[in-house]
Amino acid sequence: MARQRIAVIAGDGIGQEVMPEGLRVMKAAADRFNLSLSFEHFDFASCDYYEQHGRMMPEDWKSRLEGFDALYFGAVGMPERVPDHVSLWGSLLQFRRHFDQYINLRPCRLLQGVTSPLANRAPGDIDFMVVRENTEGEYSSIGGRMYEGTDRELAIQETVMSRHGIDRALRFAFELASTRPKRSLTSATKSNGISITMPYWDERVNAMATHYPDITVDSFHIDILTARFVMHPDMFDVVVASNLFGDILSDLGPACAGTIGIAPSANLNPERRFPSLFEPVHGSAPDIFGQNIANPVGQIWSGAMMLDHLGHAEAADAVVKAFEAVLAQADSAVITPDLGGQGTTETLGRAIADRL
Amino acid sequence: MARQRIAVIAGDGIGQEVMPEGLRVMKAAADRFNLSLSFEHFDFASCDYYEQHGRMMPEDWKSRLEGFDALYFGAVGMPERVPDHVSLWGSLLQFRRHFDQYINLRPCRLLQGVTSPLANRAPGDIDFMVVRENTEGEYSSIGGRMYEGTDRELAIQETVMSRHGIDRALRFAFELASTRPKRSLTSATKSNGISITMPYWDERVNAMATHYPDITVDSFHIDILTARFVMHPDMFDVVVASNLFGDILSDLGPACAGTIGIAPSANLNPERRFPSLFEPVHGSAPDIFGQNIANPVGQIWSGAMMLDHLGHAEAADAVVKAFEAVLAQADSAVITPDLGGQGTTETLGRAIADRL
Ligand SMILES: CC(C)[C@H](C(=O)O)[C@@H](O)C(=O)O
Ligand SMILES: CC(C)[C@H](C(=O)O)[C@@H](O)C(=O)O
Repeated sequence: MARQRIAVIAGDGIGQEVMPEGLRVMKAAADRFNLSLSFEHFDFASCDYYEQHGRMMPEDWKSRLEGFDALYFGAVGMPERVPDHVSLWGSLLQFRRHFDQYINLRPCRLLQGVTSPLANRAPGDIDFMVVRENTEGEYSSIGGRMYEGTDRELAIQETVMSRHGIDRALRFAFELASTRPKRSLTSATKSNGISITMPYWDERVNAMATHYPDITVDSFHIDILTARFVMHPDMFDVVVASNLFGDILSDLGPACAGTIGIAPSANLNPERRFPSLFEPVHGSAPDIFGQNIANPVGQIWSGAMMLDHLGHAEAADAVVKAFEAVLAQADSAVITPDLGGQGTTETLGRAIADRL
Repeated sequence: MARQRIAVIAGDGIGQEVMPEGLRVMKAAADRFNLSLSFEHFDFASCDYYEQHGRMMPEDWKSRLEGFDALYFGAVGMPERVPDHVSLWGSLLQFRRHFDQYINLRPCRLLQGVTSPLANRAPGDIDFMVVRENTEGEYSSIGGRMYEGTDRELAIQETVMSRHGIDRALRFAFELASTRPKRSLTSATKSNGISITMPYWDERVNAMATHYPDITVDSFHIDILTARFVMHPDMFDVVVASNLFGDILSDLGPACAGTIGIAPSANLNPERRFPSLFEPVHGSAPDIFGQNIANPVGQIWSGAMMLDHLGHAEAADAVVKAFEAVLAQADSAVITPDLGGQGTTETLGRAIADRL
């Protein structure tokens, strides 16, 4: 197999700390499964870069990255230094938009060795996938302000939902549901309050459902859906949602499953016209940065999703089994404080690499 | 004291079932505290009315209701019969908008006798207020569709945030925080992704905070905030949020506190130019309608908020104490199935009225 090129962008905050562990495990997987992977590091898409260059990325970022087979990404954002909307719209959200990574896929699973904040939930009780539309919807860049600085000041922003954009996300979600035993799909809506875009979303869900008669489809308004995540997380299988609702559900879901420190995500361009991007859900977490206590499993699990996307299902599986085993063992000298241990980012990363 | 007139609108679904219990308790409170309250019933703002008249409310609804001192509201919406955006924008959302009920106030408290789905949480651990902006934001009525019925179809909806609208909600929230022992306020944002309106929200929060130097202010993106509700519900005191984010947080919060069946809300026009509206958070719940098992505490607690708003703090307090006592007693013949009992809507309502 030809060498596959991976662009590594650690970004900000704990992205810098968990990425080395992600790479450690990726390299261990490459060794064991004889994969030909190369890693090239980029320092842009970080607030350091911004402070030096006045922008988050060089002008030619797209041409520099588009030849890669995947982007392995840490986290971006240091709100004390650069406003979040500047850092994110100058980096991550550009990747999603310009590399047409229109699916954000986020597994949510309660693992052995991880304690759920929910009472009486055991591994196996929580196991679902959030499929998030990742390029449009509430994350638009259309709008602006008027009457600035006066009492009449207004800010307006548009939510844009296209049939093209919704349908391809729904199709992915329905196909995914078709591969899973429960064959069930839940759509997040808010058509009672958000009266134009959300009824349109519902219409497209109903239209798509006619092509998948063997999938059970239900739909909940986002408010009650978040309540159900807490009350009945066992009822979900594939959850499909707009950009914003998917964002919310894919933090809430992992929290219900114990910690967002371990949650992975894949920003996919399913047609592989552009590189897909793999990043942990946790973000840059400035509050714990610098202490070397960040849980690297989100980064490592995202790496497993990357291996899978690159065609190395066996290696991906081995990585998942490795961190599952290490977490289940729950050696307190190894696991990080968020899981109740005294380990560091590195002890946990090394243990997983060794296990492989 | 002059007689106070209350418009009663039971609406749809379990609104019809819980309203009689709400009224039973209101009347018991009026007796005991010698309040002069009158109740007038309206059958509009319901899907029955819609099916008879082709609209949710008569044209002159505003003039018929604006003389009342308060609106006591059940729930509206029967999506199998009338699309939710039609029923809600034809009723509840009109009240909020035209009676300028710009604050939606939603207490969230874990009560004795109620089991939280969160592990190791006891009464006292969860006790906060969600202050929701209630007239603008994501619930706009501006937008539309283009290229209908084609592959290029688009739906666009605007989020509108005004300084006037944001500031008055923030002021209410800061004032409320000033009356509470923790003196702390959390703002829900999503300025990293929603790049125009949400940074504006943040700016207004920062501006308002300068007037309240003794209030500790923090701000979380909505995704991580929902995670924190589950992981650390004890850290919140007053949470202020936009219309949509407030909607989500005020379902999620009560779910963390055991059940949305008991959560109350007040849609306030603080200046009292128009009647305020008091309704349970749970909605019409078509799935349990007709079984007489709906928990009436949300309706009753909303009634207590109404009494308070009408100037009867002592009576309001007595109602709260009455349902707290009945819930704490947890007599399984009395309490409803959502709380683990075999009682009915009526047994629970009667027990609370008797207690008064
Ligand atoms: C019914 C719906 C429109 C309403 C809302 O979203 O405001 C409800 O969920 C609420 O919270 O009062
Ligand atoms: C950082 C932020 C813009 C981003 C998002 O909202 O998409 C993050 O929360 C995520 O979920 O990947």
